[in-house]
Amino acid sequence: MKQQRMAVHKDLQYERNRCTFDPVEVTYFLDGSPEKTKQRRDREQYFSDVLALKEDMSMRYKSHKEVYEDSLRITRDVLSKIKKLQLSRMEEYEFVLSIFAARLGSALFQDGNPVVLHYAMFLPALMGQANSEQQAYWLNRAWAGDVIGTYAQTELGHGTFLRGLETTATYDPETKEFVLNSPTLTSYKWWPGGLGQTANHAIVVAQLYTQGECRGIHPFVVQLRDVETHKPLKDIIIGEIGRKLGMNTANNGFLGFRNFRIPRENMLMKNSKVLEDGTYVKSTNDKLTYGTMVFVRVMLLRDLQHYLSKAVTIAVRYSVVRRQGQLKLEQPELQIIDYVTQQYKIFPHIATCFAIHVTASWVLDMYYTVQSQLHQANYEKLPELHSLSCCLKAVVSADTAAGIEQLRLSCGGHGYMTVSNLPTLYGLATAVCTYEGENTVLLLQTARYLVKSWKQAMNGESLPESVEYLNEAAKGVKHRPWSNDLECLIDAYNAVAAGSIRLAAEHLDRRIRDGVPMEEAWNQTGTELAQCAEAHARVFMVKTFAKAVKQLNSKSEEFRQVMFQLCELYIVYWALRNVGNFLRFSSMQKEHVETLHSRLEYLLTTIRRNAVGIVDGFDFDDHILCSALGAYDGNVYERLFQEAMKSPLNREAMNISFEKYLKPFLKSNL
Amino acid sequence: MKQQRMAVHKDLQYERNRCTFDPVEVTYFLDGSPEKTKQRRDREQYFSDVLALKEDMSMRYKSHKEVYEDSLRITRDVLSKIKKLQLSRMEEYEFVLSIFAARLGSALFQDGNPVVLHYAMFLPALMGQANSEQQAYWLNRAWAGDVIGTYAQTELGHGTFLRGLETTATYDPETKEFVLNSPTLTSYKWWPGGLGQTANHAIVVAQLYTQGECRGIHPFVVQLRDVETHKPLKDIIIGEIGRKLGMNTANNGFLGFRNFRIPRENMLMKNSKVLEDGTYVKSTNDKLTYGTMVFVRVMLLRDLQHYLSKAVTIAVRYSVVRRQGQLKLEQPELQIIDYVTQQYKIFPHIATCFAIHVTASWVLDMYYTVQSQLHQANYEKLPELHSLSCCLKAVVSADTAAGIEQLRLSCGGHGYMTVSNLPTLYGLATAVCTYEGENTVLLLQTARYLVKSWKQAMNGESLPESVEYLNEAAKGVKHRPWSNDLECLIDAYNAVAAGSIRLAAEHLDRRIRDGVPMEEAWNQTGTELAQCAEAHARVFMVKTFAKAVKQLNSKSEEFRQVMFQLCELYIVYWALRNVGNFLRFSSMQKEHVETLHSRLEYLLTTIRRNAVGIVDGFDFDDHILCSALGAYDGNVYERLFQEAMKSPLNREAMNISFEKYLKPFLKSNL
Repeated sequence: MKQQRMAVHKDLQYERNRCTFDPVEVTYFLDGSPEKTKQRRDREQYFSDVLALKEDMSMRYKSHKEVYEDSLRITRDVLSKIKKLQLSRMEEYEFVLSIFAARLGSALFQDGNPVVLHYAMFLPALMGQANSEQQAYWLNRAWAGDVIGTYAQTELGHGTFLRGLETTATYDPETKEFVLNSPTLTSYKWWPGGLGQTANHAIVVAQLYTQGECRGIHPFVVQLRDVETHKPLKDIIIGEIGRKLGMNTANNGFLGFRNFRIPRENMLMKNSKVLEDGTYVKSTNDKLTYGTMVFVRVMLLRDLQHYLSKAVTIAVRYSVVRRQGQLKLEQPELQIIDYVTQQYKIFPHIATCFAIHVTASWVLDMYYTVQSQLHQANYEKLPELHSLSCCLKAVVSADTAAGIEQLRLSCGGHGYMTVSNLPTLYGLATAVCTYEGENTVLLLQTARYLVKSWKQAMNGESLPESVEYLNEAAKGVKHRPWSNDLECLIDAYNAVAAGSIRLAAEHLDRRIRDGVPMEEAWNQTGTELAQCAEAHARVFMVKTFAKAVKQLNSKSEEFRQVMFQLCELYIVYWALRNVGNFLRFSSMQKEHVETLHSRLEYLLTTIRRNAVGIVDGFDFDDHILCSALGAYDGNVYERLFQEAMKSPLNREAMNISFEKYLKPFLKSNL
Repeated sequence: MKQQRMAVHKDLQYERNRCTFDPVEVTYFLDGSPEKTKQRRDREQYFSDVLALKEDMSMRYKSHKEVYEDSLRITRDVLSKIKKLQLSRMEEYEFVLSIFAARLGSALFQDGNPVVLHYAMFLPALMGQANSEQQAYWLNRAWAGDVIGTYAQTELGHGTFLRGLETTATYDPETKEFVLNSPTLTSYKWWPGGLGQTANHAIVVAQLYTQGECRGIHPFVVQLRDVETHKPLKDIIIGEIGRKLGMNTANNGFLGFRNFRIPRENMLMKNSKVLEDGTYVKSTNDKLTYGTMVFVRVMLLRDLQHYLSKAVTIAVRYSVVRRQGQLKLEQPELQIIDYVTQQYKIFPHIATCFAIHVTASWVLDMYYTVQSQLHQANYEKLPELHSLSCCLKAVVSADTAAGIEQLRLSCGGHGYMTVSNLPTLYGLATAVCTYEGENTVLLLQTARYLVKSWKQAMNGESLPESVEYLNEAAKGVKHRPWSNDLECLIDAYNAVAAGSIRLAAEHLDRRIRDGVPMEEAWNQTGTELAQCAEAHARVFMVKTFAKAVKQLNSKSEEFRQVMFQLCELYIVYWALRNVGNFLRFSSMQKEHVETLHSRLEYLLTTIRRNAVGIVDGFDFDDHILCSALGAYDGNVYERLFQEAMKSPLNREAMNISFEKYLKPFLKSNL
């Protein structure tokens, strides 16, 4: 909405005045340094005109088609502004990705970006899987504006299980071409962003057939539309998949082939190759492409952190301004943030934002380490990194989606309104639960690593850092008696994860001993396996958070205190949410639950005072937060009203349908 | 979508062939009798032309305004068909309500009904709160088609806490009129369905002022628009509130008054009165109106049952047809319903549908009993009924919303598509968490009753049926040692609820003893109080379900078995979800958790065979299910494709925005 010059609501001002620390400490901590904060703010400021334009469009009242057209206009504006900066190719590429990432991107494009896959998948796939001639050719064409690409892997009938893909690319040595086909309805590509009406090229993942044999899935660059007219090429069946819960400007599309021919050179041949005569040369190393998937998942953690941070900023500010109910008759109505039940709904998610932040940073560092090791053919840390990236993506996306919903509900009916921005944030976050690997499938991938690690621990082998706790558990080290300090709680998290993994491994083994085939036994143990991967992700987040807070080098004692409180809240909250397993697997006894709950209540009250300061520190400009409930000045009701007036239904005194439908019907009853 | 004449998918047919019982048993059980099933089917069949028309409209691609206009056209069609039946007034009224209820109504109107409040709130308020002359006048006018009403209570700044409402109605004895005003922005009415552009009258709840004193909130009938032209009357500020997460055809509106005058006779005077000279006559009995609120909440349980039943039907059928992954290389991909993790996501919600059904029936019976007692001035059971209706509305709406989301996610990416109908069902269900009493507020209302009951039990007073378990707990009866039979589990549920209530009451007392004022102590104990109300709702549902299954008078042993399995699944599932409290408060020991989990796994496998049969028994016609993933014939991919083709973006080879925005930008880079 337009930047309104309204005074800050007195209740919000009061909170800001009594905050015990300087919110900019939070900002610097999250950005990494004051310099990076300045950089980010400049970058965000640079796009304020596009953000203002987008608000004027009131896209939420338009038709599906109009909204798509608006989104391309925004895309053009954003890309033009970037071009004006005259950066080098690599600088521009990185700049685009930083703009498209959730923090700013979900404000610019709001409900999905029709060209993001060109940058986030098409170009990286070329860089990672094309050989150098191919790279030169395609990257130059992309740079020249001839090519807008997307990445077409998922099919109507096939998602996470890649071996099941049905699209075929059959090599014809006569013409030195691949013939692409969609042999079934389920083989149609389905879901790629921008594929609908936006991209003119795609990297298509297809089953390669040559010399009569299937060689598994490989990537091909395929032109889909005429570069000049944008008309789909002959024998290409293409369109968009239709309306969705969210991401309605992502222009997700479908794609089918009818004997569509592409030159041999369009297969990306950095790894495997097909020679002119059709000879297949297998890749000697397919682990290098493995890293990209991990990288994408780590980037998703950052996106999720920003979705949740926005939602929690909205809920905190609204809860300060909103009043409801009285504790005493003569008093004014209570600010809803003063209800402990409300604090319980909101504050743990403030803590989660930081937990995600530090975890994502840790995993990103590990990713860079592993990447440099990979180039020296050192694959040692790859399984650990992969298993971490799987369970973290699953747990963080599930926590974020559930968190945003709880925050939305904490805003009562007004949270249900589109102008709260909470429904849109939810749509973006929950989508992450199924894309880039469905969450349960990912948890089970981590579980495989955990069960293997457990066996190694039982054999006395020493394990890498993230699963080191299994070594202790395997030795049968007795847990120290319960105390309420954080170290003891963290030990208990270790014990819960280890206990869950041990049980799942034992149940799996028992089934195999009973004669159940391995994969069927795995399936039968599925719920416990998924749960142990969740416990693993949780203990990892808890420990990373605790370590980061300890290492905090802020000079401000007040800020350090706030971070300690949030960390403790995270640890206590998730222990209570999962208290059954703490009673089962750690030294916690029944009577300790009450003490822990009191601790939770104490932390909520303590954080209460700084809640506004902390979310102010997330530093979301109103244009980026896009919420009538969450704006910095807290003028919630004025904004709700102004926004309602934008509905086209309110531009006329009465709608035609009364005259057309209702009145004739009503009168016919007389 | 159009009824496609396609063969039933072979995988679904296989499931139907091997079902152990006749699905119509489920149908008769839920409808009440074969006769009632026939009645309902006839009724649904009667509207099949309207349903088909609605599908043709493809409203999901249209603008907000177009969608509203479509919805009024549907409204006209539905009401016209009802008029043709030439029923008596009361018959017609009841018929309309049955059509508007969630099962059929959410298919006819899909995303909210712009006239439902006329029938569900406006007319009942007249019947309950108008005196006989007022009833005669207004009901006749409504019947004649002059009046389309809504019910305007909630304000921009005021929801569940009714005393906080700000709209004023000041009596002017000179003119014998009330003067309505909206003194602040927050006093604007906000949210009433149909208020935007549809209704021409409303029952407005306002603070009554007469003879210089505020007399609290009272209801007034207010004309808002001209009956002929539909133009808003002078000094009425009216419009719609804008786009929302869902219910976008409900036409929720806002309303403000500037010294708007209505005759004295427009105050509904069955209870309190204002005489001509301005004398206020207080109602001698305000408990009679209390029942309506309870009735609405019970009806919401039914609506929620139908939303969840639809979602679970979609997820089960899709999971049979969808294949993903292999257990063995040479085998075809597995039907996803065969993954235990998938069964775990879906089957508990099948059980929940029945749990809601039997609970709603029980509470409805109790409601009728209480209503007839009320007319004999017997208020004994009112507090129990009220407390049950509060916590059940809260728990069932939360379970249903979370359940639908889990079911949607169980359908992977395709569940995210609007044509799955899962996003719309979610939007409808989650709205119930905040309307008709925000869930946390309702849980705390129940908690008040529970804490009071606990004290009564401690004083040796005997309690009504639903809280009788507190009597045993207060006596300190030792729990019998754990065994895995259902009776023991149900006892454990009693113990969990009693234990939670006892603890919350003790903590509340401790705070009061420590000098915290009563209401502040209540707030500080809020999280535990809300949790104990949840535990109370759960044990009530568990016991009602178990009793209903035991009393099942079906002749078919197979059907009885299925119902027993579902009941056991419900009981085991929720015990495991909340296992910490079972370990704390019941005789369950750590080692029993594994046994219980094995029982869960066993039940999932057992129910697997009949899952399709059970959801077939919910008897949703494709037109009413409205889901490309859930249609009876299981031709999921064909439907997804056909539905995508309806997107207006797919009606043109290329969209204008390429030529307009993207191409000029791309070319400018050269």
